[in-house]
Amino acid sequence: MTYCVAMALDQGLVLASDSRTNAGVDHISTYRKMRIWHRDDERVLVLMSAGNLAITQAVVAVLEQNVKAESEGHSLMMAPSLYDCAVLVGQAVRQVHARDAKALKENGVDFNVSLILGGQIKGEAPRLFLVYAAGNFIEATPETPYFQIGESKYGKPVIDRVIKPGTDLTQAAKCALLSLDSTIRSNVTVGLPIDLLLYRRDSFSIDNHQLIQEHDPYFEDIRARWGQGLNSLFQVIPDPPWAIK
Amino acid sequence: MTYCVAMALDQGLVLASDSRTNAGVDHISTYRKMRIWHRDDERVLVLMSAGNLAITQAVVAVLEQNVKAESEGHSLMMAPSLYDCAVLVGQAVRQVHARDAKALKENGVDFNVSLILGGQIKGEAPRLFLVYAAGNFIEATPETPYFQIGESKYGKPVIDRVIKPGTDLTQAAKCALLSLDSTIRSNVTVGLPIDLLLYRRDSFSIDNHQLIQEHDPYFEDIRARWGQGLNSLFQVIPDPPWAIK
Repeated sequence: MTYCVAMALDQGLVLASDSRTNAGVDHISTYRKMRIWHRDDERVLVLMSAGNLAITQAVVAVLEQNVKAESEGHSLMMAPSLYDCAVLVGQAVRQVHARDAKALKENGVDFNVSLILGGQIKGEAPRLFLVYAAGNFIEATPETPYFQIGESKYGKPVIDRVIKPGTDLTQAAKCALLSLDSTIRSNVTVGLPIDLLLYRRDSFSIDNHQLIQEHDPYFEDIRARWGQGLNSLFQVIPDPPWAIK
Repeated sequence: MTYCVAMALDQGLVLASDSRTNAGVDHISTYRKMRIWHRDDERVLVLMSAGNLAITQAVVAVLEQNVKAESEGHSLMMAPSLYDCAVLVGQAVRQVHARDAKALKENGVDFNVSLILGGQIKGEAPRLFLVYAAGNFIEATPETPYFQIGESKYGKPVIDRVIKPGTDLTQAAKCALLSLDSTIRSNVTVGLPIDLLLYRRDSFSIDNHQLIQEHDPYFEDIRARWGQGLNSLFQVIPDPPWAIK
């Protein structure tokens, strides 16, 4: 499995993904799931993927080929808006579906893929899209300013409690890491390293990109503090008022 | 959906279930999912269910009929051990499967059911079983002292952090309620009231049974304190050390 989360905030975007891939418990590997396309002062595009690794790699390969070919109407680097980029991601999903879905079905494998596309193109605000396996997609709004893909449920409560559009990038980064921590603790198919990108609105920069490895001092520190803090908080929550016989 | 959790502790058992049932978003109802069979000083059996409501009701109906008929070899009230009771629950699942699964399949409905059976029969320690849709089952052990069924992921992190076999009934009850709180906040298909049963080892009593309704003062208090406490804890977790450009 995988876990990726992205938040669309007033200050910009926060995107985080784990790197664990498993095809059965005896085939667990590390594949990073965040792909970045960038042109200074003009556009930043970040794609994160969950689902069947062969499918997600094929989708990225299609998008890469079209970028390299500078293919008018097909290249993410030439699309005039993030919306048009989401359309291109959806088209790449459909192209892979047309090639692979029948053979996968014959082998009893679902065509399982979901993608988060975030970024900014000059002239627009930062935007965030969730692309489904059918190639259709939705956009994040202030009412629902975040998307998750993959093994999303363990890490949802902390986001539901903290994230609002006004949350600043620093706090949102902390929240994303704690959300990943909860997921990694409860599910063995999600693991380090973590790709974390903080994108500041109108910066068109990918400078705030961290790869958080095993034994990262900050991540270890907040994991420990969060765990101890939750236990301390649990202790001070009042006990039930009923006498227990 | 549903969410039920049960913990097997040195002091006894804690079992909790929500009461929300949905068949599509326009058909949401309240059905309690905890069924208790009890004979003073001799046995306490608690069954909680998740999955298709028609199937779970049919399973309980089969078990009830056999108890009423005092059917030797089939009644939960006559089975000599909790293990034998788990066998009977599995047999009831298979009986319903034999009757309904084909028709369900023709209607595109999965045979979806899972059950938790906990309790104590005189002469044994308290025991806890998880029964699958195939009628097979597993038993909780000190290494994995809890089971969840239904919408289990949102409420798993708090249990993973708190519950050990040595946790006392009071703390475990608090943890179960906070686990339900996390689930109710993040998933609209899980809702109040909550059935909560604390079973003290060797008591053979069901006196510690609470039905927690909307506006229950204790549950509202701990939900609020937990939410505020998590937000305060989040605030004191150190910010990332990287300068964010």
